[in-house]
Amino acid sequence: MSKTKPSIPKGTRDFGPEIMAKRNFIFNAIKSTFQKFGFLQLETPSMENLNVLTGKYGDEGDQLIFKTLNSGDYLNPKNSTIDLPNESSKSLLPKIAEKGLRYDLTVPFARYVVMNRGTITFPFKRFQIQPVWRADRPQKGRYREFYQCDADVVGTNSLLCEAEIVAMINEVLKKIGLENYSIKINNRKILSGIAEIIGAEEKESDLFVAIDKLDKIGLDKVLEELQAKDFTNDALAIVRKVLSLKSNGLEGLIEVSELLKGNATAEKGIAEINEVITYLETLNITADHLEFDVTLARGLSYYTGAIFEVKVHDVEIGSVSGGGRYDNLTGVFGLPDVSGVGFSFGVDRIYDVLETLDLFPNTNEDSTKVLLINFDKESELYGLGVLSKLRNNQISSEIYPDAAKMKKQFSYANNKNIPFTLVIGSDEIESGKLTLKNMESGEQNSLTIEEIIKLLK
Amino acid sequence: MSKTKPSIPKGTRDFGPEIMAKRNFIFNAIKSTFQKFGFLQLETPSMENLNVLTGKYGDEGDQLIFKTLNSGDYLNPKNSTIDLPNESSKSLLPKIAEKGLRYDLTVPFARYVVMNRGTITFPFKRFQIQPVWRADRPQKGRYREFYQCDADVVGTNSLLCEAEIVAMINEVLKKIGLENYSIKINNRKILSGIAEIIGAEEKESDLFVAIDKLDKIGLDKVLEELQAKDFTNDALAIVRKVLSLKSNGLEGLIEVSELLKGNATAEKGIAEINEVITYLETLNITADHLEFDVTLARGLSYYTGAIFEVKVHDVEIGSVSGGGRYDNLTGVFGLPDVSGVGFSFGVDRIYDVLETLDLFPNTNEDSTKVLLINFDKESELYGLGVLSKLRNNQISSEIYPDAAKMKKQFSYANNKNIPFTLVIGSDEIESGKLTLKNMESGEQNSLTIEEIIKLLK
Repeated sequence: MSKTKPSIPKGTRDFGPEIMAKRNFIFNAIKSTFQKFGFLQLETPSMENLNVLTGKYGDEGDQLIFKTLNSGDYLNPKNSTIDLPNESSKSLLPKIAEKGLRYDLTVPFARYVVMNRGTITFPFKRFQIQPVWRADRPQKGRYREFYQCDADVVGTNSLLCEAEIVAMINEVLKKIGLENYSIKINNRKILSGIAEIIGAEEKESDLFVAIDKLDKIGLDKVLEELQAKDFTNDALAIVRKVLSLKSNGLEGLIEVSELLKGNATAEKGIAEINEVITYLETLNITADHLEFDVTLARGLSYYTGAIFEVKVHDVEIGSVSGGGRYDNLTGVFGLPDVSGVGFSFGVDRIYDVLETLDLFPNTNEDSTKVLLINFDKESELYGLGVLSKLRNNQISSEIYPDAAKMKKQFSYANNKNIPFTLVIGSDEIESGKLTLKNMESGEQNSLTIEEIIKLLK
Repeated sequence: MSKTKPSIPKGTRDFGPEIMAKRNFIFNAIKSTFQKFGFLQLETPSMENLNVLTGKYGDEGDQLIFKTLNSGDYLNPKNSTIDLPNESSKSLLPKIAEKGLRYDLTVPFARYVVMNRGTITFPFKRFQIQPVWRADRPQKGRYREFYQCDADVVGTNSLLCEAEIVAMINEVLKKIGLENYSIKINNRKILSGIAEIIGAEEKESDLFVAIDKLDKIGLDKVLEELQAKDFTNDALAIVRKVLSLKSNGLEGLIEVSELLKGNATAEKGIAEINEVITYLETLNITADHLEFDVTLARGLSYYTGAIFEVKVHDVEIGSVSGGGRYDNLTGVFGLPDVSGVGFSFGVDRIYDVLETLDLFPNTNEDSTKVLLINFDKESELYGLGVLSKLRNNQISSEIYPDAAKMKKQFSYANNKNIPFTLVIGSDEIESGKLTLKNMESGEQNSLTIEEIIKLLK
């Protein structure tokens, strides 16, 4: 066996206990919220057949799918379609790789819905929290393996679902202690309405791509870009008006509806947003964080109704959540007219935000609550009885496995972020009063085991 | 875009909501037990560099590792080491694939320990619950993607760790409702002692492989196999004596210790088992399920001390848990003398056992607790207020998103295993008394929202 100096593939990460506890804090907030709102969990295989994955993410996406080599003798000479001397990377690929790693959670979900349409009860509210893989060039904040957390409702057009997405975003961000953020909302129909008004139905995607850049490049550059794509001066004038209206909160919605009045498509989009707002009021959800943003396009052709995106203030970072309504999730697999609405959280970005703002809780819910210090054999044997009482009361607890130096045992407790230690010497055994030490404050108390259980439970 | 009829790779599975809820029941029992005993979670990347994975699982294992194709132009003609016309599957592999999918959780754990030895606090108690992949031929109960649930303590020789493993096995199986099982225990040193006594130190693995088969092929066949491997008649006579002693419970241990008296290695192994039993008594853990089994070898050369395996009775199935102590986890990565003890649960097998014995709880903890029936717009608006009160009290709840037919809404509740429905008609709105229906018993009650919250919380 070779003694390799081990490393991990670039763009991937180990999550040690401290980081896992923080990640679980985020996952728990998301998962418990999804469940509270009636979403059920789905898990799909890490590997999908390549014919399921390819053609769904554009040419660039196809390049970024990790392919798994067929098992066994993948170049088997009996495979007459392989003409080795004349093969290129591209021509050989489909002959030696039939499977790839999941690139997102949406395509596997669509595949699942199609394969199980006979047994699924619609409306189907599913959530899915699993890693995905992309052969992207690794860089700060961009990984080759990362988790996605998606929730979707398919099989209903009710705008209540959109309102519940806003409610879930609020609930998750509240649970993790984030207060200063905006939930940007737009509607694809408003964007389409603008395209209709300026006579650019055929050039929708050019228009949306340019509008989407407003934040980054500013109004003048957006208009320049459109001019280069042969948009008329009249069209540019209207676009300028719409984009200049952009104001914070929900006021912009009123201004935009004034401006687009008379266009049925845009009016439908505006009415949908208003219905979502009405639902939120009825649900007693404050619309404080809601912000209409007519420039929000996200992924262009995919969405057909509402579009969401969540921006955290105070930290320079991309959106931490986003989603929207779509009309045709499963058409690519031959099942038309499955519409739904979904959204997802970006756990890695949320992690960075909480770290930057120092919002992770001090207490580590995943860790041991109390460490029993192991003095000597007598203390150990007595301690084991104590340990079993603590655990019978569902208190996470452990005893140091050897009678090591005190300093070592206390530093073990500190490194593991264990909030309490319990010292059991011969005095303690005799009196039945154990010394409970609060590791943060340094405070020590002589307590009976019953008192300790009451305190720690 | 092609309208492919979608499928999933053979040997992989989708876990829909109903199955996920059952799997989570098992995962929660395991995870909460690991945490209660002071184990911390680790997650490692799904992909590892192939030089980390290969050479660790034997030649057959190497074949079963899923390899991921290098990204981009993997056959790049600039890669002068590729001589396409003359390449075979074997020769080309290292040139086009540098990464593979995790084959188990032990090697990634060893790699993690080596890479982070400077920052880890020892003894390091880590657990890990993640999928692994093996390009095995799929068959009933054997999958190409499945979860492993491992817990290990490294950096201590204390036999308390062995006792705590027995305690954790008992606790997990109790939590999931399993009562009729044996925790088989053996010690590698006893096996080595037997090899010493019969003068077969050089042929240990032949001996252990044969002994391991006793259950399957019977004593005579085991002895035949050893005879074919040139074990002497004297040796066979002793092996026959040892294997004939095998009795249930812990009585066999006394008989074996009589028989092997005088051999220091075997005596050490027997003393270790006795110390584990003493620890269990001190922890107030019943040794009822513990069964000494001198034929238990599991994986041969790997273990150096205790060996465990859990057999469930009432169901014909392999072991549902197993593990042992090892002396040299990380030697293969150049870090010698990291000893520890670990074990793992087989979730798929446990799932099959609980399904066969009908032990899964009827209630689905993951699902919605109450569905609000959507009559009409008035009922919906009133319902949304009720919904927000339920959710503020952490009760998982949802309202049907459309005013669909009653029958459809009730069957939605049934299919989702939702235990209660709430009917809100105009009478109910007027009186403030809502009709809560228990979906299993059919019982209906007129209750105020406060009474409902109290009942469901």
